[in-house]
Amino acid sequence: MQAKAFEYLNKHNLLKHNMKFIFEGEEEIGSGSLGPFIEEHKDLLKCDVILVSDTGIISPDVPSITTGLRGLSYWQIEVTGPDHDLHSGTFGGAVANPINVLCKLIADVTGPDGKIRIPGFYDDVEEASDEERKLVASIPFNEEEYKKSIGVKALFGEEGYSTIERTGYRPSFDVCGIWGGYTGDGAKTVIPSKAYAKISSRLVPHQDHNKISQLVVDYFNRVAPDTVTVKVEKHHGGYGYVCPIDFPAYKAAERGFETVFGKRPLPVRIGGSIPIISTFEKLLGAKSVLMGFGLESNAIHSPNENMPVDLWLKGIETIINFHLEYDKEA
Amino acid sequence: MQAKAFEYLNKHNLLKHNMKFIFEGEEEIGSGSLGPFIEEHKDLLKCDVILVSDTGIISPDVPSITTGLRGLSYWQIEVTGPDHDLHSGTFGGAVANPINVLCKLIADVTGPDGKIRIPGFYDDVEEASDEERKLVASIPFNEEEYKKSIGVKALFGEEGYSTIERTGYRPSFDVCGIWGGYTGDGAKTVIPSKAYAKISSRLVPHQDHNKISQLVVDYFNRVAPDTVTVKVEKHHGGYGYVCPIDFPAYKAAERGFETVFGKRPLPVRIGGSIPIISTFEKLLGAKSVLMGFGLESNAIHSPNENMPVDLWLKGIETIINFHLEYDKEA
Repeated sequence: MQAKAFEYLNKHNLLKHNMKFIFEGEEEIGSGSLGPFIEEHKDLLKCDVILVSDTGIISPDVPSITTGLRGLSYWQIEVTGPDHDLHSGTFGGAVANPINVLCKLIADVTGPDGKIRIPGFYDDVEEASDEERKLVASIPFNEEEYKKSIGVKALFGEEGYSTIERTGYRPSFDVCGIWGGYTGDGAKTVIPSKAYAKISSRLVPHQDHNKISQLVVDYFNRVAPDTVTVKVEKHHGGYGYVCPIDFPAYKAAERGFETVFGKRPLPVRIGGSIPIISTFEKLLGAKSVLMGFGLESNAIHSPNENMPVDLWLKGIETIINFHLEYDKEA
Repeated sequence: MQAKAFEYLNKHNLLKHNMKFIFEGEEEIGSGSLGPFIEEHKDLLKCDVILVSDTGIISPDVPSITTGLRGLSYWQIEVTGPDHDLHSGTFGGAVANPINVLCKLIADVTGPDGKIRIPGFYDDVEEASDEERKLVASIPFNEEEYKKSIGVKALFGEEGYSTIERTGYRPSFDVCGIWGGYTGDGAKTVIPSKAYAKISSRLVPHQDHNKISQLVVDYFNRVAPDTVTVKVEKHHGGYGYVCPIDFPAYKAAERGFETVFGKRPLPVRIGGSIPIISTFEKLLGAKSVLMGFGLESNAIHSPNENMPVDLWLKGIETIINFHLEYDKEA
């Protein structure tokens, strides 16, 4: 779409700025080469703003621009009690059980209000502006359908925030895996020597995953009771990303959408990550505008992946208008 | 030993009461036939008191009689959140994670004082008499050696009770196994659909395992948040046992020990179970006196299992004296 837009703008001599294209063929396998390539070719890639078309809109009637992606910290925690498994009859009641301790460590992190109680965890979390929260509140959301789609009776999250805010604007603390002791059929009465958990936090701007990863390691080491040994290992991490809705290029994108779709697009932060976006920002010092035109019904990565032709054409038109509007800003 | 004692008493015409012998060959595989056999032959087995020699003494210098065995309740708990695993980026923060919930359910059961906070859990727990607690306090116990033998830096248990009391006189609440989500190498960012734990409580007189098992099921069902589905399944259970130290046959055993070992034996409750003892009590209405002469160094169930000859002989002598003393009581 971007190349088509360039073709048109160039043919009619409408472009007042330069365009550089990067075609990425490794996104689905982690963009392993792109980071080093950018690092090596910072001068070649120097730019004011980056336009990426790898996201979607809410619906053709509700155009939207992705303004944020969450980052990530990931840990593995190991709790060791006795140096070998013990008979729960002989020792039960006199020795700290590492599974019980691990459960307590995990349970204490989240309050009944859904807030993460690790001191300092929210320090760098950017609060959305009133304007943005108002726009977010206008995003169509059917709670009953959402619950039905994942099969839960009730939702749960941080008090004071909507579901869309909880997944896009707020960090999370989820145990992704836990194991320890006897897990086979029937019963075995054992106090295990060790218990483990894998834990991940989705992070939001401007939380630094290195800082948060260390914060959590320090926290667990600090609160661990002296009856066990707690070892917390940092796995990988990733930066989140945010494009402020008053950023000039965002404004240009907004007007581009408005011209073609007849409506102001809504800003949407999505819970997942496109790690290369934060790499762009870090290495090139340039913000990305995430202007994609996919739909949930496109069945991405599935059989019959599709894109409606009219949206493809509207996308090209919107990108053309973005460039025209961007020139007005400059 | 008991047969030898009988031989002596009978030969010298010293016995004023009848003796019946049961030889049990299935104890190590769960005594599957003995329960039904007793049930069928209640009249044949009718008796006033049962003498069992399947336990040990603290040391030849510190004779002891086992006065209590703990019972058991065992549960499996299943927490279901969403009906399929979810991407922790897309949903993290908006949905109750069943592992986090399970950890909270488990953590809430035990207080920082080591007490089980399920209402009614301690209702039927028999408190030991001051006399018994005094005797228990005189049992030699080296905390440093105990900690070293199981490889822990510090012990943990119910406030207000010694380690020996915690394992013999007080109930426990131990997670024997826990599992859920991703447990392989590396990291996977998932909110799992389900999380599981196997939990056991050692029970003490006069806790009824049927009552406690149901109490815990009801408790978890009551406190489960409506964001998940909690299913608690009862596994097996078993009754505990206690022989009061003012029970006439116990007094006879005590004097039997005193005559042979030159010291009053200490009452000891052990954390494990010999399920047939509570079956005896239930079906025959008779208390057992647990008068065994094993030592920790006997390497039971191990290569070179052994018993010192002088303890074997002292055992016979003690049992003879028990019978003589018992006749004095009667």
